[in-house]
Amino acid sequence: MISFASDYIAGAHPQVLKRLVETNLEPLPGYGEDVWCAGAKEKIRAACGCAGAQVEFLTGGTQTNQIVISTLLREHEGVIAARTGHVNTHEAGAIEYTGHKVLELPQREGKLDAAEVDGYIRDFYADENHEHMVFPGMVYISHPTEYGTLYSKAELEALSRVCRARKIPLFLDGARLGYGLMSRDTDVTLADIAALCDVFYIGGTKVGALCGEAVVFTGRNRPPHFTNAVKKRGALLAKGRLLGVQFDALFTDGLYFELSRHAIEMAEQLKAILHEKGVEFYLESPTNQQFVILEDSRVEELRKQVSFGFWEKYGPDRTVVRFATGWSTTQEELEFLRSVL
Amino acid sequence: MISFASDYIAGAHPQVLKRLVETNLEPLPGYGEDVWCAGAKEKIRAACGCAGAQVEFLTGGTQTNQIVISTLLREHEGVIAARTGHVNTHEAGAIEYTGHKVLELPQREGKLDAAEVDGYIRDFYADENHEHMVFPGMVYISHPTEYGTLYSKAELEALSRVCRARKIPLFLDGARLGYGLMSRDTDVTLADIAALCDVFYIGGTKVGALCGEAVVFTGRNRPPHFTNAVKKRGALLAKGRLLGVQFDALFTDGLYFELSRHAIEMAEQLKAILHEKGVEFYLESPTNQQFVILEDSRVEELRKQVSFGFWEKYGPDRTVVRFATGWSTTQEELEFLRSVL
Amino acid sequence: MISFASDYIAGAHPQVLKRLVETNLEPLPGYGEDVWCAGAKEKIRAACGCAGAQVEFLTGGTQTNQIVISTLLREHEGVIAARTGHVNTHEAGAIEYTGHKVLELPQREGKLDAAEVDGYIRDFYADENHEHMVFPGMVYISHPTEYGTLYSKAELEALSRVCRARKIPLFLDGARLGYGLMSRDTDVTLADIAALCDVFYIGGTKVGALCGEAVVFTGRNRPPHFTNAVKKRGALLAKGRLLGVQFDALFTDGLYFELSRHAIEMAEQLKAILHEKGVEFYLESPTNQQFVILEDSRVEELRKQVSFGFWEKYGPDRTVVRFATGWSTTQEELEFLRSVL
Amino acid sequence: MISFASDYIAGAHPQVLKRLVETNLEPLPGYGEDVWCAGAKEKIRAACGCAGAQVEFLTGGTQTNQIVISTLLREHEGVIAARTGHVNTHEAGAIEYTGHKVLELPQREGKLDAAEVDGYIRDFYADENHEHMVFPGMVYISHPTEYGTLYSKAELEALSRVCRARKIPLFLDGARLGYGLMSRDTDVTLADIAALCDVFYIGGTKVGALCGEAVVFTGRNRPPHFTNAVKKRGALLAKGRLLGVQFDALFTDGLYFELSRHAIEMAEQLKAILHEKGVEFYLESPTNQQFVILEDSRVEELRKQVSFGFWEKYGPDRTVVRFATGWSTTQEELEFLRSVL
Repeated sequence: MISFASDYIAGAHPQVLKRLVETNLEPLPGYGEDVWCAGAKEKIRAACGCAGAQVEFLTGGTQTNQIVISTLLREHEGVIAARTGHVNTHEAGAIEYTGHKVLELPQREGKLDAAEVDGYIRDFYADENHEHMVFPGMVYISHPTEYGTLYSKAELEALSRVCRARKIPLFLDGARLGYGLMSRDTDVTLADIAALCDVFYIGGTKVGALCGEAVVFTGRNRPPHFTNAVKKRGALLAKGRLLGVQFDALFTDGLYFELSRHAIEMAEQLKAILHEKGVEFYLESPTNQQFVILEDSRVEELRKQVSFGFWEKYGPDRTVVRFATGWSTTQEELEFLRSVL
Repeated sequence: MISFASDYIAGAHPQVLKRLVETNLEPLPGYGEDVWCAGAKEKIRAACGCAGAQVEFLTGGTQTNQIVISTLLREHEGVIAARTGHVNTHEAGAIEYTGHKVLELPQREGKLDAAEVDGYIRDFYADENHEHMVFPGMVYISHPTEYGTLYSKAELEALSRVCRARKIPLFLDGARLGYGLMSRDTDVTLADIAALCDVFYIGGTKVGALCGEAVVFTGRNRPPHFTNAVKKRGALLAKGRLLGVQFDALFTDGLYFELSRHAIEMAEQLKAILHEKGVEFYLESPTNQQFVILEDSRVEELRKQVSFGFWEKYGPDRTVVRFATGWSTTQEELEFLRSVL
Repeated sequence: MISFASDYIAGAHPQVLKRLVETNLEPLPGYGEDVWCAGAKEKIRAACGCAGAQVEFLTGGTQTNQIVISTLLREHEGVIAARTGHVNTHEAGAIEYTGHKVLELPQREGKLDAAEVDGYIRDFYADENHEHMVFPGMVYISHPTEYGTLYSKAELEALSRVCRARKIPLFLDGARLGYGLMSRDTDVTLADIAALCDVFYIGGTKVGALCGEAVVFTGRNRPPHFTNAVKKRGALLAKGRLLGVQFDALFTDGLYFELSRHAIEMAEQLKAILHEKGVEFYLESPTNQQFVILEDSRVEELRKQVSFGFWEKYGPDRTVVRFATGWSTTQEELEFLRSVL
Repeated sequence: MISFASDYIAGAHPQVLKRLVETNLEPLPGYGEDVWCAGAKEKIRAACGCAGAQVEFLTGGTQTNQIVISTLLREHEGVIAARTGHVNTHEAGAIEYTGHKVLELPQREGKLDAAEVDGYIRDFYADENHEHMVFPGMVYISHPTEYGTLYSKAELEALSRVCRARKIPLFLDGARLGYGLMSRDTDVTLADIAALCDVFYIGGTKVGALCGEAVVFTGRNRPPHFTNAVKKRGALLAKGRLLGVQFDALFTDGLYFELSRHAIEMAEQLKAILHEKGVEFYLESPTNQQFVILEDSRVEELRKQVSFGFWEKYGPDRTVVRFATGWSTTQEELEFLRSVL
């Protein structure tokens, strides 16, 4: 069946898989100590324009959020996130599992506001009993957000200023980073992110890899004994090459950006088709995820021919659903969708 | 200095201390296996009108919230609480320390609304991805709330109905329970609470004891190996008698209710004095805590003669402050306050 | 360089990789809900001769130990393991990270003794203060062990009897299970393991997969909300297909057993070469890992041409080193080793 | 009934209770910010001969071990302890609950050997895979030990040297410290302990208080945000005065030492009686606990008139039991024991 259900419906981009096949028989040391990991890290540093960056590979998004947050926070600290942030809503309490609170702030289109973050921290320290409270120790944002929206460069700069003034790290969840960078409506580059964030990750799982996320610590701030922390959380791969080879492929000849651009091109066509068919948008995003409102009867009908994602109920008879494109979305699939919508 | 700073400014009610002195030399087994613990449990069961209740003694409020919540929740569950709930704001992340999320809901005057709780749970199960989320596994309320307000019997009944329909326990934090029960504006009795809640505690620390909270499991639902769980959390007292003797004294001849009633009588006089002096109320509560708004200059002046609690800033030049009465508050102290306000 | 450093030096067995390539473009649901996971589970149930088994796929060995142990133990329980057990020594405290103690018992050649386990549990319950202690709640064994040794069927039966009499699960870590099953010196079959253990896993990472372990709950004892528990620990793969496709390949036409048998054949030849060269064995195992004692000078010399593993110092001038074979070990590599030893 | 069951069978020393009564009505700030806590800390610093010491009060022994260890260890570290150490055996896994491993070493009469500790740490760092292991991050000893035995000054010095050379803290559990200091067979003073340990605690619960332990950080090494850490673990008392007043009393006019000396005097007479009666010693300790071996029939008979502690079975027909003295033990009680033994 044709699927717009998510950006992780297919395996890996063929070029990524090809590299796994080509390197398969090389005997390599385990646990990420191999040459492919080293090479991929170098290529990522170059792509970020951040020669001093420390890069680490992990397997999935929730795992990465859990490990980055729990290793960078000190014990008395929690992480500020939008109420709709992935870490706050759809990770089964993975942050709290490590003993840390997610400090919810209001959101607009999935985004945090720098002034609001600053106000929250100021009020926190104004409270005479703040030693009885959870200290704000990090700011978590996602880019694209859970709604596919993007921070502008000015918004990121404002958040970065607040974080640096308050001396707490700014962490950007880039599970879908490629789609943000290749959006037609962004003024934010990878180098900007490396310059403005203290730590972020470049999503592989949702952008062409079988699995894998590349964490970038931009300020020599990788936690000490990071490998031990990863192992302790059950997340250290014996065959670290699986991640190194894939990221090496993604960051060779700009593949990561190219396949992200393809998904964006497909998303723009998707939006045009949805408009053409008079479908009401819940949120028209500048990236690869589009949220529209459908009558429940239409949802039921359409599901027989096309896969897409349930988001939430919208009144008694309608539902918000999500259509996502990805590197594997084809022109033919869009035409099919047009024909059945 | 005269103090209205809190309801834990003095030691224990003299009658409580007297019992500690009288029983001091009795050789008793440790860890709560003594006759005074047994006797106090029996008296509490009687006071609750709940012969089958299981009673356990713990040392302090945050500890009690942490232990009750973390032993009753299953691993995939979190606890619903008002945004202003003590467990959500002023316990340094003690719940998250045990690996569980506090699921924030909006509050009015510190209270949760049964319909909103029900809606939250319904929406949770409607989400197709709810296995990726934290399950609502308990409802936490405080009575009196952090603002000194009280649930009506009808409100408690509504919450209880929701919880029982959804098969999750209703937990009432009664750190200041006596002041709620003795309020002039309540229709809720201790027996009502025992009938409507699945677990609650009767606060000792803030109601006349040196320390101690009596947890009441009302439905044979004390977690198995509870002593082990308490020990594992570092909370098992070697001399459990310290808690048993105090609660025995508090529940002999109605002392707990009598000293609570005294604090309420003092609070009513306090409110009258504040009104008489034209002080603006932030929240005039039916219990022993009153929240008023003072000019910052007045705060500074008054602090030289009287202790009271800072609550939060209220605009640029004013502050919300808290005055609390307790079992040890005297007529003379109120007269003094009147003379300097 | 020729490497006998471990059994995870190469990528995946070519047949496994081929299946990943062939299925790569199929649009599939995420999180293990795909047809390949379903098919692989069915094939594993068949191979185990256990139609009612519940099979789950995880990514790596430490992760699997951590998740199985922490989801099956109750809060007051710990896991019994040999002092040399992987969970006790080389997993960075991953079990303790989940709040559970590893209860060390003595070992012989990496193995636990059933009578000793039974005695430990008996003594535990004889202690009048056992509610102050960590309850024995599971027995963990590895097969092959960390030393490459194997339990006999009689030994496994004895452990199983103790566990069932004591009503605690027996958990077998099969990170290298294939090499145990294909050993020339074993009377234990996969069906025996499924019959005698309550939960075990079939290692993929060290036996031909890029990553992946298949957990088998043999008695309808998969913990409730297991997906939520996996997500909460950061271990749920978005593209669960990565595991399903690989295990489908491994359990098609007996590939898992065939490649294990090859590694054993290579190991037998390796042992012969080591004997022929007069190398002293520290422990001559019936599986794919061999432990020998070399002069430090010889270690240094040999390392220039061959990779192998450091195990531990053995007196001032000698070292225990490990040679491991795997599915990718070739006749030519053995000949080369013979030539340089 | 006459009881030698433990050193926590009675309430508080009368002088301690008297001070609680005398100060009961003073209005004081909460959470340990009161004058009695401040005064007690000053007196303890003086008694330790360590003007720069940082003193903190906690409620019980397991709680103190849990908090000290989990706040001083870094995430990748565990704590070395004797196999028989209280933290390893009788605290329900309270250390593991905080995510840290107890690293067991062999013991002799409850004690660790400095050379063995040093060897363990050396071997740890020699392992090439030590990033996959739990780092030794602290050494825990108890003094008196769980067997009532004592380290000599030379033994403590040796342990201290090892810890300082390895840059890890030495932590002494002094739940029964007074009985160690007042033993007739010790050359170790409180000042020695303060000089040789990085952190230790002076037990109150078992030495004359209702509850309370005084933690002494000897090298400006109190963890930052310690109050927050205590609150997060549910251990912060609202009425911190309860601990401050008691320790103030214990450290006024040498009461702590005086009542410990009394218990030792009683223990010496107890030993004489046991010898006189031909009772076989399991371990004759220099402090207030004595371990003897009794026929099971004699145990049963004696229990009708005297309380004492079960330790462990000793062959089929005999049992090791413990007799403990304390500040409340009287000459009459000893005479009674003599009469019925």
